[in-house]
Order: sequence, then structure tokens, then C-alpha cells
Amino acid sequence: MTTFHPTPRFPRGYRTASRNVGLKPSAKDLSIFVSEVDAAAAAVFTRNHFPGAPVILGRETIKGGVLRAVVVNSKVSNVATGAEGVEIARRMAAAAAREVGTGADRVLVSSTGVIGVPLPVEKIERGIVGMTADLVDDPMVGAEGIMTTDSYPKALSCAVGDATITWVAKGSGMIAPNMATMLCYVFTDAALDAPTLDRLLRAAVGPSLNMLSVDGDTSTSDTCVLMANGLAGAVDERAFAAALADGCVRMTELLARDGEGATRLLRTTARAAKDDADARRVARSLVESPLIKTMVHGADPNVGRILMAVGKCFECTIEPARTDAWVNGHQVVRGGLRLDFDEPTVRAALAADVVDLVVSLGVGDASATAYGCDLTKGYVEENAAYYSS
Amino acid sequence: MTTFHPTPRFPRGYRTASRNVGLKPSAKDLSIFVSEVDAAAAAVFTRNHFPGAPVILGRETIKGGVLRAVVVNSKVSNVATGAEGVEIARRMAAAAAREVGTGADRVLVSSTGVIGVPLPVEKIERGIVGMTADLVDDPMVGAEGIMTTDSYPKALSCAVGDATITWVAKGSGMIAPNMATMLCYVFTDAALDAPTLDRLLRAAVGPSLNMLSVDGDTSTSDTCVLMANGLAGAVDERAFAAALADGCVRMTELLARDGEGATRLLRTTARAAKDDADARRVARSLVESPLIKTMVHGADPNVGRILMAVGKCFECTIEPARTDAWVNGHQVVRGGLRLDFDEPTVRAALAADVVDLVVSLGVGDASATAYGCDLTKGYVEENAAYYSS
Repeated sequence: MTTFHPTPRFPRGYRTASRNVGLKPSAKDLSIFVSEVDAAAAAVFTRNHFPGAPVILGRETIKGGVLRAVVVNSKVSNVATGAEGVEIARRMAAAAAREVGTGADRVLVSSTGVIGVPLPVEKIERGIVGMTADLVDDPMVGAEGIMTTDSYPKALSCAVGDATITWVAKGSGMIAPNMATMLCYVFTDAALDAPTLDRLLRAAVGPSLNMLSVDGDTSTSDTCVLMANGLAGAVDERAFAAALADGCVRMTELLARDGEGATRLLRTTARAAKDDADARRVARSLVESPLIKTMVHGADPNVGRILMAVGKCFECTIEPARTDAWVNGHQVVRGGLRLDFDEPTVRAALAADVVDLVVSLGVGDASATAYGCDLTKGYVEENAAYYSS
Repeated sequence: MTTFHPTPRFPRGYRTASRNVGLKPSAKDLSIFVSEVDAAAAAVFTRNHFPGAPVILGRETIKGGVLRAVVVNSKVSNVATGAEGVEIARRMAAAAAREVGTGADRVLVSSTGVIGVPLPVEKIERGIVGMTADLVDDPMVGAEGIMTTDSYPKALSCAVGDATITWVAKGSGMIAPNMATMLCYVFTDAALDAPTLDRLLRAAVGPSLNMLSVDGDTSTSDTCVLMANGLAGAVDERAFAAALADGCVRMTELLARDGEGATRLLRTTARAAKDDADARRVARSLVESPLIKTMVHGADPNVGRILMAVGKCFECTIEPARTDAWVNGHQVVRGGLRLDFDEPTVRAALAADVVDLVVSLGVGDASATAYGCDLTKGYVEENAAYYSS
């Protein structure tokens, strides 16, 4: 298991700055992340059919395999804005490149916030000037500028040999597992080339960010970027891959725990499934079910709902007589039948800060875990007036 | 278009009774629906891998193609109760058969309520005695006894030639489109044989009950039964099929409108899709999206979410530049771009009692409509303590 630093720090050569440039009334709404030298880079993006302008541009940019900086604004996502939106994303890259002293093709752009509203790029072009003077080596400063409905900034870091890996992300709503998810930036000073980074990144996000679901709604802006500037030299690739995977899971848990309106982390695991696809489907069905999510919210031991959510995976191999289930280690279902369990015990288990629902399907040896949160009135409140507030 | 009776009534020869037999503290919890002569019958059931005991028994019973009665209890669903549960369902059928004066193989049993709790069948065996003396010809009386979290009983009727068709149903939560849905009983005095009923029923539920989703959670008890006792003689089959289809859509709307916590009916239509499967997927993605549902709840014109929900149908043919969208007739998206629409107008449209979201995909000529409701704090409240309350 990877040990994370108590306070997240950057790898060698990375710094960040964030500001309010007038997109939000007063909160920070623009962040830049800069490597002092060119970094090899890989990225994965949303699979939504309506990718935002920054995703369209980002797919082009990442082909070069080299990045110096990432620039991110919050409040307006620059999605469903057409050719004009892509032009605006290009202007944003150019403005950041001028400020940092590099080419626009080495700057990855992200935007997050309301869909379908023009991004006032002039505010960014004006506001970014002089921002390099503010660069600091605290990743939380950059994490702050990319928040939307997140209730706190999110960053993590750990060591791998002489190198460091640092994650900075935002999540909260419109979060569902498919190709990266929301905005997550991973920085390292390890020396790894772009094709290796691409392979390691895809392997790491598969069982972590791609198994995260706050609400089953896949964003049009999801982006996960991995930059490696090489300042720490070579690292053991297997150790790096393991740390990268662990950190992606930890960040996924942080994002799930802070899902819109969430009060608790929900982890759902399908074991002994026929194959990976079945395991992932069942784990996701559990984590996305409104009836499971409200059961967890209310710590109400209505565990029959676990069977309902498994049973609605029509395309999976499910054998009721072999299906078992546990709530934080307490068995509640055996052979497809609800056990006569001690209700106060299970009620207490469901009220824990982290709720693990484990289902064993008894038909194979594949397993998968999905990450989510409870469904609360807070989710409804935030999303019934997101546009207007 | 079919005209429904202002007050629902039964076809010739059908009556119903309902009672409290002690499953609930005082509300009605048992209903019987009886035809005075044998009726040809067809039924469709849930596709959930954990069907309730009454569904397991019902699949066996319906093979005979003949029913005299339906008996339904609410409060406990008799699901995940194993062989003992099936035995209990058989005892329930036998008790109703004794009371009605027929064979147990001519009684269809349904149970609805909490999953995984033993059904105290003795209460039903005791409570059902003498119930035929209470039989009345008002379908609302039977509809009352099958309610769980429904806020009002649901029945409909219409004429087809000399015959009548009557629908009695319950819905509310754990409602998602797949093979019938929740409990819906359709009675007619038309003379139609069981194979014809089966064909007509499957055709009618496809675009209606199977396109209903309150929460995407497919119940373990879903059952839809069609009985035809022939007392009105032959009918025109096409007229009957049309009326059956219309009534199933109308009942679907009633059920959606009264989804748990719902305040409004949400209808989502995908037009100009590549094929039926795509049209159904897109319509369902829209009706099930928590962000669409909360947008409707808050009448918040955050219409970019419509593109998000269309765009997350990864397997569908979506061409952003050909995608248009309307909210109650007001166009909000053209060619994948958010239009600069009049916000107060669209806000008012989203606040209507019935909200129609229509998306045109511009790639084919298939279309489909899905039925659902807004997502409210009421849904969270009801489901965070359903088991305990």
C-alpha cells in the first residue's frame, strides 16, 4: 500500500497559481499548473458525444505528447458552444502560453461549470497576465481555483523512489464512470515517455476514476492528464504503476465522498463474477441505484434492495441461490435469501462514514469495486437551481 | 384517441373488494379482483434476476391461460424468501380460491412492499374469509388495497364497441422500464383467447409501461395481467388493440406523475433516431438522468444537461451538429448548440405540470417516448426510511 504525504506537495519543477478573474463574483475561478521544463504527457477524456471545446482542443494538443502547463477555469464549461467555443479554448491556451513562455501547443486547457453558455475569454486573457509571479509549490492553491460545487479542494501526493506523484482534482456532480472523469491532473518528476504514461494512465483510471459515480451522469468535460517532467530521473516502472493506481483510487474516494450533497462514502464490490464486465456492471448497478443510495443515507437496513440492484443487471450471469451479500462485513444475504441478521448491528454499519457493500455472485472469479455516495436532499437542492445560482 | 370514462368502471362480470387484514396498522392491505366466469388471460412479469415468490408462481399459473381472480397484498412483497416464500404464495392462492369458489390454478397472486421479510400468510388466510360478500363494481376499491407509497389509487376505463377495458395499477418507487412494471391489472369483457391477449399485451406494454422510469430501479415484483371474460362477445381486434395501447400509456402517465416524491410528469421523446433501440435508449437516458430530473424540479433552464444526457448514450448514433431540442415546444438547442432563448419563457415551460422534452437526433426516422417525474427531496425522504416506517 502506498503512503500519502500528510500534506500534499508537488514533484520537482511544478508550481501553481490561482485567481479570481471575474467569472465568479469573488471566488477563485482560474488556475494554472506549470512545469519549469517540458514534460512528457498523456491524457484521457470524456466519451460523451458532446465533448466540450477544451476536450476537442485537448485531444489535438495531447497528440504532441508534451506539455508545459495546464490552464483551468471554473464557472463556465465552454460546452455546446460550437466552432466559436473551440476558438475561445485556443485563445485561452495562447494566453496561458504567453504568460508561461511556451507554445500554445504545450498548454492543455480545461473548463468546468455551466454547459451551453459562452465563456467570456477576455476576462481570462486580462486576468492571467502576471499570474506566473504568483506561482507557489502548494498544489492546494491550484485545486482551489478549479472547484465548482466541490466543498473543499482536493490534492494528494506520494513518493516513488526519488520521484513524487501529485494528484489535483475536482468532482462533485455530473460524475459517472466513463473514460477518466471530471478534471484530474497528475504530476510527476519521474522520467517516463509519453507512450508509457498513456499506458499507465489508462490502466490506473480503469478501476478507479472510471468506477466512480456520483449520479450516473457523464460529464461533457471529463479530463485526466498525467505529466512527467523527468527532473527526478528514472523510476522503477512497476513501483510507479502501483503508486499511480493507489493514488487514483484514493482520489476517487475523495471525489465520491464529496459528491454533491453526499454525507458518506459508498463502496460497492462485486466478487466471484463470471468476468470483469459482469463484475463492473453489478458494482455500478449497486453504486448508482437511488434506492441503495437512499438506504445508505437513512442507514435503513432495507437490504432486499441489494438483491434488486443485482437482479436488474439483466445481461449478467446471476444465480440467485449462489448470491451472498455483506454490509461492512456483516452478512445479510446468503444463497439469495435475506438472513435473519441483528438489525441494530446492520443499522449501525450502514451509518458508518464509509459503507462497504459486498456481493458475491458465486459464478466465477472476477471482481470490481465502484465508488459513490449517498443520495440526499442536498443533491436535489444543489441541482434544482445550479444554473440560476 | 381513446376517450376514458370520467369515473372508472368495470367490464361486465368483474368485481373487487379490499380490506385491512393486519399487515398494515389500519390501511387496506388486501384486494381481490374476481370475474364471475373464467377469463382467458395473459401476463408479463419482471425481468429482475430475483423475482418474488408470487412472480415465480404466477409464471406457472399463467401457463393455463385461464384466471378467475387476482389476489394482491401490500406491505410485504414476499421476495428473497426462497422455497418457503413460494409455498406461502401457494397458500395465498388457495385461500383466495376457496373464498371465490374456484381452483388455486385460476388465481393470480401478487405481493408488494418490503423485500426479504416473511409474509404472515395466516393473516391473509384469516382475513380473506367472507370477503366475497364485500365485492363491489367500483375498481377504485380494489386499487386502494394495493397501494404502497402511492399517494392515490389508480384506475381507468374505456369502451371498445360493446366491451369495456379497465386498468387498475400501483406504482411509485422501484419503478423502471423492463417487462411490465409494478402491478397493473387489465380487465375486459371482450371475447379474446389467451394467445391473442398475450400478443396484444406485449405490444401494448412495450411503448408504455416498459418506458416508465421513476428511479431506474427495476422491481422484483413487476406484474401486468390482462383478463378477458368474454361476456361482451367479440370485438374488433384493431380497435381493442388501439384502446389497450392508449390506456396503457395513460396509466403509465398516472404512475409517473405519482412517482415517489414527484410533483410533475416528465415526458422525454427522442425523434429521428437511427432505430428503435437508439430512440428508446436516448429517451430513457433523459428521463432517468438525476440532473435532468432536478432541473425540471427546480424549473431551472440548465438545458445543456439535455445534451449531456443524450451524449452519454455511448452506444447510440449521435451527431452533435444535427441534434435539436425543445422544452414544451420551445426550441433550446439547434445543431448541438444552445440557442439564445428567452429564459423566462423556458423557465415557465419547465414549471408546467407536464414537461415534454423532445430531442431530434437527425439521423433516422425512429422515435420513442419515456415517462418519468422530477427528483425531489420527497423521494429521498421516503426512501431513506422506507423499511423502518
